[in-house]
Amino acid sequence: MEEKYISKAVIARLPRYYRYLGNLMDEHVERISSADLSKIMKVTSSQIRQDLNNFGGFGQQGYGYNVKYLYNEIGKILGLDQQYNMIILGAGNLGTALANYQHFANRGWNVIAVFDRDPGKHGGRVREGVEIYSLDDLEKYLDHNRIDIACLAIPASVAQKYATCMIRHGIKAIWNFAHTDLEVPEDVVVENVHLSESLMQLSYRMTHKNKNKDREKD
Amino acid sequence: MEEKYISKAVIARLPRYYRYLGNLMDEHVERISSADLSKIMKVTSSQIRQDLNNFGGFGQQGYGYNVKYLYNEIGKILGLDQQYNMIILGAGNLGTALANYQHFANRGWNVIAVFDRDPGKHGGRVREGVEIYSLDDLEKYLDHNRIDIACLAIPASVAQKYATCMIRHGIKAIWNFAHTDLEVPEDVVVENVHLSESLMQLSYRMTHKNKNKDREKD
Repeated sequence: MEEKYISKAVIARLPRYYRYLGNLMDEHVERISSADLSKIMKVTSSQIRQDLNNFGGFGQQGYGYNVKYLYNEIGKILGLDQQYNMIILGAGNLGTALANYQHFANRGWNVIAVFDRDPGKHGGRVREGVEIYSLDDLEKYLDHNRIDIACLAIPASVAQKYATCMIRHGIKAIWNFAHTDLEVPEDVVVENVHLSESLMQLSYRMTHKNKNKDREKD
Repeated sequence: MEEKYISKAVIARLPRYYRYLGNLMDEHVERISSADLSKIMKVTSSQIRQDLNNFGGFGQQGYGYNVKYLYNEIGKILGLDQQYNMIILGAGNLGTALANYQHFANRGWNVIAVFDRDPGKHGGRVREGVEIYSLDDLEKYLDHNRIDIACLAIPASVAQKYATCMIRHGIKAIWNFAHTDLEVPEDVVVENVHLSESLMQLSYRMTHKNKNKDREKD
């Protein structure tokens, strides 16, 4: 199981399976056929069978998938059976929103501190138990705490500076909301969330929707 | 120009070109070679030449690309030469963060109203000129205002209900932060930002980084 190679395309689809399986568990569904899963997820049964066959032959014809088993297996592949300590740089609206996502803690992503440059915020809390520290204390903090993920919710203009600083102090994973591409060593992973690029994709699809329709009609 | 077909893969890369060309304009760079652009964007020159050739033969050998021209052409393709009226559902930290992104207004996405269910927020402002209304007044508002994009920064449990309601009142584009897949008619475009799925991808890459390394060494 551990050794099996799973393609990138399947990996990219796993969070969505994980979400639907989690919803089914909330509804106390124990088993589900690929046909029923196909209906609620709006992908073909054959796609589902191919994807989930990566997790062993537990979807037997006429018997369906064991929801909890699959949920746990996918969770393990995604590393969600582990606990991660996360810090957030930036206690603005975005940083505060991220610190308050309830789902994150449930999945093992524990926000344990937030850093901001505004002295007025220092010593305050984004929520119960999560204090806001000065960015000046970041290096000292990293030297005394095991942090797995650093989230950048600070302006693009200072993102690289703080990323470099944190990497020097052992950070290996960055969740980057700053609208810039970070330069990092090979052993550091960065996941970008570029909100304005997402809006551009929406804008593109709005602009070209009618043109595409026209083309289809031709 | 208008009629030319541009592949999905190129479209997906355009926002990044747009960002780098915008930065170059800020630095008053008028022309740039594909070699130099390759260096700062960390993609191959040949990829850049192929991608940008979609916008006419304006990158002549030894002469480089006209930065402003390319920026404007890509902007047009992405629909950024137009103005869009946007509303945000949810005046929590995320909704407030989105309402306050300065870049959005610069690119023609104008947040003009925010809706929330909390009566304590009604009549308040997320920023100068952007009032918070009651979700109960949403339908009436949509009947009297031309809205191009609705952004959902509300819980997943109520997202579909409000999406359906807004579509009934003419909304054709939804920027969805609620962690659920919306069911919408064919002529409505939805762009999802599922933050926890992004974190799962990061978690996956952290978990499997060392394993991949080991495999490469074998």
